[in-house]
Amino acid sequence: MPAYATNMRMKFPIVALAFEMVTIILFAVFVVYDDGKREEHGGHGGHGGHVAPSNETNLELVRMDLYPMFQDVHVMIFIGFGFLMTFLKRYGFSSVGINLLLAAFGLQWGLLMQGIWGMDGGKIKINIFKIINADFSTATVLISFGAVLGKTSPVQLLIMTLMEITIFSLNEHLVAEILHANDVGASMIIHAFGAYFGLAVARVLYRPGLRNGHDNDGSVYHSDLFAMIGTVFLWMFWPSFNSAIAEPGMDQFTAVINTYLSLAACVLSAYALSSLVEHKGKLDMVHIQNATLAGGVAVGTCADMSIGPFGAMLIGTVAGIISTLGFKYLSPVLASNLGIQDTCGVHNLHGMPGVLGGLAGIVAVALGKKKGGKAAMQAAALASSLGFALVGGAVTGLIMKLPFWGQPPDQNCYDDSLYWEVPEEEEEHEESLAHTDHSKNKAEP
Amino acid sequence: MPAYATNMRMKFPIVALAFEMVTIILFAVFVVYDDGKREEHGGHGGHGGHVAPSNETNLELVRMDLYPMFQDVHVMIFIGFGFLMTFLKRYGFSSVGINLLLAAFGLQWGLLMQGIWGMDGGKIKINIFKIINADFSTATVLISFGAVLGKTSPVQLLIMTLMEITIFSLNEHLVAEILHANDVGASMIIHAFGAYFGLAVARVLYRPGLRNGHDNDGSVYHSDLFAMIGTVFLWMFWPSFNSAIAEPGMDQFTAVINTYLSLAACVLSAYALSSLVEHKGKLDMVHIQNATLAGGVAVGTCADMSIGPFGAMLIGTVAGIISTLGFKYLSPVLASNLGIQDTCGVHNLHGMPGVLGGLAGIVAVALGKKKGGKAAMQAAALASSLGFALVGGAVTGLIMKLPFWGQPPDQNCYDDSLYWEVPEEEEEHEESLAHTDHSKNKAEP
Amino acid sequence: MPAYATNMRMKFPIVALAFEMVTIILFAVFVVYDDGKREEHGGHGGHGGHVAPSNETNLELVRMDLYPMFQDVHVMIFIGFGFLMTFLKRYGFSSVGINLLLAAFGLQWGLLMQGIWGMDGGKIKINIFKIINADFSTATVLISFGAVLGKTSPVQLLIMTLMEITIFSLNEHLVAEILHANDVGASMIIHAFGAYFGLAVARVLYRPGLRNGHDNDGSVYHSDLFAMIGTVFLWMFWPSFNSAIAEPGMDQFTAVINTYLSLAACVLSAYALSSLVEHKGKLDMVHIQNATLAGGVAVGTCADMSIGPFGAMLIGTVAGIISTLGFKYLSPVLASNLGIQDTCGVHNLHGMPGVLGGLAGIVAVALGKKKGGKAAMQAAALASSLGFALVGGAVTGLIMKLPFWGQPPDQNCYDDSLYWEVPEEEEEHEESLAHTDHSKNKAEP
Repeated sequence: MPAYATNMRMKFPIVALAFEMVTIILFAVFVVYDDGKREEHGGHGGHGGHVAPSNETNLELVRMDLYPMFQDVHVMIFIGFGFLMTFLKRYGFSSVGINLLLAAFGLQWGLLMQGIWGMDGGKIKINIFKIINADFSTATVLISFGAVLGKTSPVQLLIMTLMEITIFSLNEHLVAEILHANDVGASMIIHAFGAYFGLAVARVLYRPGLRNGHDNDGSVYHSDLFAMIGTVFLWMFWPSFNSAIAEPGMDQFTAVINTYLSLAACVLSAYALSSLVEHKGKLDMVHIQNATLAGGVAVGTCADMSIGPFGAMLIGTVAGIISTLGFKYLSPVLASNLGIQDTCGVHNLHGMPGVLGGLAGIVAVALGKKKGGKAAMQAAALASSLGFALVGGAVTGLIMKLPFWGQPPDQNCYDDSLYWEVPEEEEEHEESLAHTDHSKNKAEP
Repeated sequence: MPAYATNMRMKFPIVALAFEMVTIILFAVFVVYDDGKREEHGGHGGHGGHVAPSNETNLELVRMDLYPMFQDVHVMIFIGFGFLMTFLKRYGFSSVGINLLLAAFGLQWGLLMQGIWGMDGGKIKINIFKIINADFSTATVLISFGAVLGKTSPVQLLIMTLMEITIFSLNEHLVAEILHANDVGASMIIHAFGAYFGLAVARVLYRPGLRNGHDNDGSVYHSDLFAMIGTVFLWMFWPSFNSAIAEPGMDQFTAVINTYLSLAACVLSAYALSSLVEHKGKLDMVHIQNATLAGGVAVGTCADMSIGPFGAMLIGTVAGIISTLGFKYLSPVLASNLGIQDTCGVHNLHGMPGVLGGLAGIVAVALGKKKGGKAAMQAAALASSLGFALVGGAVTGLIMKLPFWGQPPDQNCYDDSLYWEVPEEEEEHEESLAHTDHSKNKAEP
Repeated sequence: MPAYATNMRMKFPIVALAFEMVTIILFAVFVVYDDGKREEHGGHGGHGGHVAPSNETNLELVRMDLYPMFQDVHVMIFIGFGFLMTFLKRYGFSSVGINLLLAAFGLQWGLLMQGIWGMDGGKIKINIFKIINADFSTATVLISFGAVLGKTSPVQLLIMTLMEITIFSLNEHLVAEILHANDVGASMIIHAFGAYFGLAVARVLYRPGLRNGHDNDGSVYHSDLFAMIGTVFLWMFWPSFNSAIAEPGMDQFTAVINTYLSLAACVLSAYALSSLVEHKGKLDMVHIQNATLAGGVAVGTCADMSIGPFGAMLIGTVAGIISTLGFKYLSPVLASNLGIQDTCGVHNLHGMPGVLGGLAGIVAVALGKKKGGKAAMQAAALASSLGFALVGGAVTGLIMKLPFWGQPPDQNCYDDSLYWEVPEEEEEHEESLAHTDHSKNKAEP
């Protein structure tokens, strides 16, 4: 069918290399190592209104003290998000492989887009704090990727990465530097933003042909175990995600403790609800893989506020409940009534818990849990994040819908073999369970 | 059969939510962030007789310096233990999933139980040191979980978690604060305790119907590879486990080096013995997955003592040998003669190596390798740990044996599908190798 | 066939235990904990010409500050290399299991061989810096292992480990202490050395019978996903590999940033080229698993030089291109024309990118990007590394070719079941797809 020119042989290499070349040129012109000296006193493009520690006294801190936390975040981005999406039975190559591609491009683009707002002497000075933020910027794309997983081509997704990180950086700057709102763990500016951006794209790319599901839109036993690798690494390192760019000292410490406790409580409520709503009280892997993480999303905005250990646990408990209920009852309605086909259920993991986190932040600031915070600014930040996400996602979706990006036809959705060389054995297994396999010789064909 | 009401729909959600609610209430009353100020001078609930560094000078240390080691321990608890148990062909969801559930509840309960002994102004002050210890407390449960893996319901296991951590905290307090014994890497108070507690539970829950084995009590090729993820992460981060709560400086450094070397030597002896005892000299995955870790267990008590690099290597070598021999020759005897069905062979990985560690500690202290240590107190600590484990495990086993906790019937043991929604494909594959799979639609049913 | 006495029952345990016993004795005589005091002022056996920071002022640094980076490197060695090689459909046990064995022995042997050159008062003083270097020494073996994967016995590989680390340590000492060349990320002394050493061994062990490939020399769907665990962990932690032993401060920071950026750019070019050269523009998992890492190899020598962020990205881009092209066009030629059967394609991941890194280092030093560096010494270091590798590999290959080490016959290559107990189900599945499996009872046979 001519409308579906899914052969990537020219399109994909040209787009990927062009993006990289432009990026390298921009780096050559604008990006230098941070030597710790400052010409102007400006923000650092950090999200959540935090700036890097002042330079003279804390030079070493700028340099390497954040490095272990950077690596935790790095693991969340590349292993966490990548493997979380491998639950689909025949889409694991794309899940972990395209995740790597998008994040690798996204972090370079994020360094530029976030760096624009904190240039010093006309230069973007790169340091550990900045590469943490660049990793964060890619998280928005990976969340949106979850909403359209299995239904988009690599070229479409590279375009989405470019657009989304650009728009994200705008909103981030507005929230942090203009509104001076608090969002240390980014419930609003990453999770809610990424989810609603992705849902808007999914809405524009709505496929009536998948209304009744698709044979490949499901898991097999071992694909669910691969996905648990992603879940558990996200779960473990989330305290680093929510505290990495917090003010060093008590704030950062508080963010760690709150996130640790919120996630622990969330596990109990997610398991309980999963059993409660499922046939014969059985646990559902979809809930376990996703809803157990909702506590990390929802406590994000308040993470560095003195909400008390039990406050964090309450937020986590509620997040686990609404996330599980969302998977069970809301996602089917969104798909059938609103035309929003959300492959990974990002609305339940990032969307609703992100909004919950934003709302909790408004309440916490109103109750004086954050020195200098203003509830109105928190509300404005939430509104801004949702607005940028929905409008930005819709526009991006329209661009992605242009007919020459190689979008897969309905019958080839959720199938790696359209864009990847897949071992033959697997296909045989599928078709006839023939017993020999002649997978191609890997290194020496 | 009415005796096996394995439907979890009411029982499990009620127990899980009730446990969480009680925990949150106790946190609201008793737990606050550690602000570094102290009203009283007391112990910190740490195991091994170590207290946190004094507060004035080392405030930052209390706060975040231990954070990278905390994350290593966290990975051991959630990825290490979780994936180590995925070796069973159809029990991977439970292994990694119930591991997450028990550890998430256990760390909250552990913070309370351990915190009781070091309250300050009527409050439990939570910090990084304390959350490392809370993670440790869950390790005992996860070890015991290995002994009863595949033969217990989630409700039974939640009850075991509550009981075991409570009893563990008592023994830990006795060993560290009353006996002033050394056990920095917790050979006695975690490994031996967790193993013998679990074996006592397994004895009480003895199933004559499984005397001749069970079809599902074995691995498949890829389940053994998933288990190796657990093995390798445990192996790599064990130096952090044994040194995380050591005295900063030379002691902590020594604990890292000793554990690193003991584990390296243990690998060689475990591989050698596995080949020696097996048919045609082939390696056995059970030994490789488990006995390679025995060196980390056995060097635990002595880890921060100046036993010399070669001393650590000797301990590791011996541990690898006795662990492998235990899997080959002792486990079958325990099962057939003593009615102790030890699914993961925790007696060989944690039990005997833990006792070996305790004995090595007695010898090392007697030889003056630890300033201020007393051999008699070391012996008392070992006896106490074994005593609390056996009695506590037996009592807990009796409670778990009550007929309304949804324990699985013999024929459904080692099978996820009793408590989990399992992708249909897998079941078909099992029954008829039918070639199509209609796994349920995940997010949009 | 009597020539292939592949039964390991005596050979393997004897060799493994003998190696370990000799090692422990040498440790008892020569190795002590580093107490921070120095009798002589000597080098620390570090590669790349770096010595550990001076002792008085930076005692704590020597002790524990490098520990998080050590753990990152540790993960690369044991998870990264181990799982990267699990791509073969029936060789996963050996890939991750023998990787563990070789690295566990290698790090002990490396501590001795590297320590010889920096003895203090007749003792090798072990510290975190030294165990990072010991981990590095094992990387050379694991790279060479990739070239001969599936075609060698565990005994042959233990002998290779002993030989290769001994020769590596010689070359490392020459490059770092005699030539005073720079190679902080070890493009030359680890990657090029390990690759050409392995290729020389593979050449000596050439198997005409595998000229037309082998049924088992290929992947299945899930084995490719296991391999991606290795790829992604290597990719994420490579900045630690290239910076762990750099001079603390700006040099170390620069090494992190350069590596991070080189790898990100490399992903784009590897993906683009994979699509460009493959049938219908599809991505090839072999390229994605390997060529995405070439940027980390190639930027190694220059990592701590002020080549500029865009300079690092250019190196990464070029590395991704030549690595992918190597897999596609060069590996088949090497196999058919030169008799070099390179199972994992280490020539493309470590060989060519390592040489590229060495050349980039010569240029960068010539351009004054490293204070005090001399281009001629860089060139000599590259030549030395290649010379030691080729000669050392050939000699080692000849020793490995002796007929009593249990080398597998052609038809049993790439097959775990020769040296491992493999679950029966797997074999049945292979032969007849019979539907029941009677895997042996694991802990209680």
